[in-house]
Amino acid sequence: MAISSFNPPVRTLMGPGPSDVHPRVSAAMARPTIGHLDPAFTGMMEDVKTLLQYTLRTSNEMTLPVSAPGSAGMEMCFVNLVEPGDKVIVCQNGVFGGRMKENVERCGGVAVMVEDAWGEAVDPNKLEETLKANPDARVVAFVHAETSTGAQSDAKTLTALAHQYDCLSIVDAVTSLAGTPVLVDEWGIDALYSGSQKCLSCAPGLSPVTFSDRAVERITARKSPVQSWFLDVSLVMGYWGNGTKRSYHHTAPVNALYGLHEALVMLREEGLEQAWVRHTKNHLALRAGIEAMGLSFLVKEEDRLPQLNAVLLPDGVDEAAVRQRLLNEYDLEIGAGLGVLAGKIWRIGLMGYASNTKNVLYCLGALDAVLSDMQAAITQGVAVSAAQSAVG
Amino acid sequence: MAISSFNPPVRTLMGPGPSDVHPRVSAAMARPTIGHLDPAFTGMMEDVKTLLQYTLRTSNEMTLPVSAPGSAGMEMCFVNLVEPGDKVIVCQNGVFGGRMKENVERCGGVAVMVEDAWGEAVDPNKLEETLKANPDARVVAFVHAETSTGAQSDAKTLTALAHQYDCLSIVDAVTSLAGTPVLVDEWGIDALYSGSQKCLSCAPGLSPVTFSDRAVERITARKSPVQSWFLDVSLVMGYWGNGTKRSYHHTAPVNALYGLHEALVMLREEGLEQAWVRHTKNHLALRAGIEAMGLSFLVKEEDRLPQLNAVLLPDGVDEAAVRQRLLNEYDLEIGAGLGVLAGKIWRIGLMGYASNTKNVLYCLGALDAVLSDMQAAITQGVAVSAAQSAVG
Repeated sequence: MAISSFNPPVRTLMGPGPSDVHPRVSAAMARPTIGHLDPAFTGMMEDVKTLLQYTLRTSNEMTLPVSAPGSAGMEMCFVNLVEPGDKVIVCQNGVFGGRMKENVERCGGVAVMVEDAWGEAVDPNKLEETLKANPDARVVAFVHAETSTGAQSDAKTLTALAHQYDCLSIVDAVTSLAGTPVLVDEWGIDALYSGSQKCLSCAPGLSPVTFSDRAVERITARKSPVQSWFLDVSLVMGYWGNGTKRSYHHTAPVNALYGLHEALVMLREEGLEQAWVRHTKNHLALRAGIEAMGLSFLVKEEDRLPQLNAVLLPDGVDEAAVRQRLLNEYDLEIGAGLGVLAGKIWRIGLMGYASNTKNVLYCLGALDAVLSDMQAAITQGVAVSAAQSAVG
Repeated sequence: MAISSFNPPVRTLMGPGPSDVHPRVSAAMARPTIGHLDPAFTGMMEDVKTLLQYTLRTSNEMTLPVSAPGSAGMEMCFVNLVEPGDKVIVCQNGVFGGRMKENVERCGGVAVMVEDAWGEAVDPNKLEETLKANPDARVVAFVHAETSTGAQSDAKTLTALAHQYDCLSIVDAVTSLAGTPVLVDEWGIDALYSGSQKCLSCAPGLSPVTFSDRAVERITARKSPVQSWFLDVSLVMGYWGNGTKRSYHHTAPVNALYGLHEALVMLREEGLEQAWVRHTKNHLALRAGIEAMGLSFLVKEEDRLPQLNAVLLPDGVDEAAVRQRLLNEYDLEIGAGLGVLAGKIWRIGLMGYASNTKNVLYCLGALDAVLSDMQAAITQGVAVSAAQSAVG
């Protein structure tokens, strides 16, 4: 068995995540490991909490990064807030609403589905009808930014509806956080999870979560224990909860947290609002190039996520062959469609640090070259110049 | 809010974990992030599987690192193998047996406890009595190396007993793996979890697990779905399972896996047997110094883990004050006692890369100096020279 050290290729990551990690974040992850109860480390944990509260626009005390990827953050929200027999309204307009349904059912809950087409936003009217028809529902769950389609839903309106009908809200903000506004307190979101590997420009592996006071009350009043020991909020908060006394729960992923800390420091330096503006600006440049190539978007303009662009395939193109050439010839990763959208779209991410002019122009240039070579593009060269005009 | 980049102090980590991370592993974690479905990445995943099989002495196909710390690895074993109503015999001789009981109960199982004193190995006779008295038991769970006490149990004998009474075995090898022999196939272990941050010399955050064919059969025959979506083995294996076709489950912690890969490559270079020898040799050097200071061990010699030394406090010493001085004046971390052993022992780890002569001599020198200053050591200077003789 001859296995030697792994030296990854240097890619440009413009798929649905992970996105490019800033060199400052990579460097932070290589700093010396220290103990998870070392006062120097727990001081850094306090910083991470404060920075997450800033990023999530919340003063929720229960705000922390789960020591595992976004799907564990999702599970943390459901296992703590759903008890056996609870009815949960799940809005589905892509892959991740389906995963929410799985979570509800594995908690012993009953999922009532509100279905919208993949690529469209969740329809608040359908949610309201379902809430009216299910007065015993306890939770409304929806995906703010569907990573599988690039559609954004109106989290403020959906959360207000949930509250109007005495439900808590669980919100998936994996792809939205730091790319478009996520205003936890202003919108009244009760439980939210995100991921480190999208617009936070950090490596994958951590999932920021936050719980409102209302959510904490619900958890405190549970009749049954939380089915997961690892994801039991009340236990995790014994470690993350306050600065003076921490009890051991699990061993925190020390170096991964160094990375998240650095990524959040950088976001604070740029300013959250400025990051939103940057994501929009780069999306508009990409859009100009995409449209100049004669291509179009899956999602209508007002629901479109600037950080995740679902582009419809031109007729007769082998989508996997294009992605493979981009990867092999350009070290450029873009994403495929999932589920019903497999073979129908590409997903081009402009997330976090990766949302920059260089990536926009590089991606358009590479895509244009490959499509032209495959005789599928309208006119070679138009994409980049259209984007340059949009940037200028 | 003025929060700047975090530069951790450089500690020597000789507590119960995390242990010192080798510079090669730190450097690996900072390499460029690539996509979790990139062929270059999935090729590396295959290496990680092969190297874990080598480290665990197993040919189990279901061998992989869980994308979360050891306590999630523990939970993965229990949620997949325990169904509601299942009776599980849990051997407890420290903190982590208690956590196993929690896991069984949160899966809806019934835990039957076999209790041994903290600091002692699990008594096979007690287990056999309990197995005889509970013919309907389906699983036996025990901790191979109790991180809270430094005691090692006879995993081979306990597993054989489990099989004799038609039970599967779940084994905690968080602290033992790569420090002392863990022979999964030879001993017939059915499910085992470990952690990256102990004798594997890697940063915390990943949990190697393995499942035998017998365990896989049990999982396949389940009547109820696994309660965790994130930890459902059959779903996780869709991503880790085979080299040709992988389906997306969650986004793998890419950079953390680079670190584990490098740590396993280094272990392979040294040789697993040689790593065991090194852990024993450094333990004996530490022991010589500890005993020369007039101190003694909690665990009797034949059950003592070389990688985790539980040292009884000398009379009248404030244990927290000693640890604080070691940390502040020597940047040296050793561990406190947990639970019933709080205030009674220190836990001195010699794990993985941290198990080396330099650390042994440094720790003894620092401990001797602090204890002498607090007028609690027999004779200043004897510890290091005793250890030097033992090393020589």
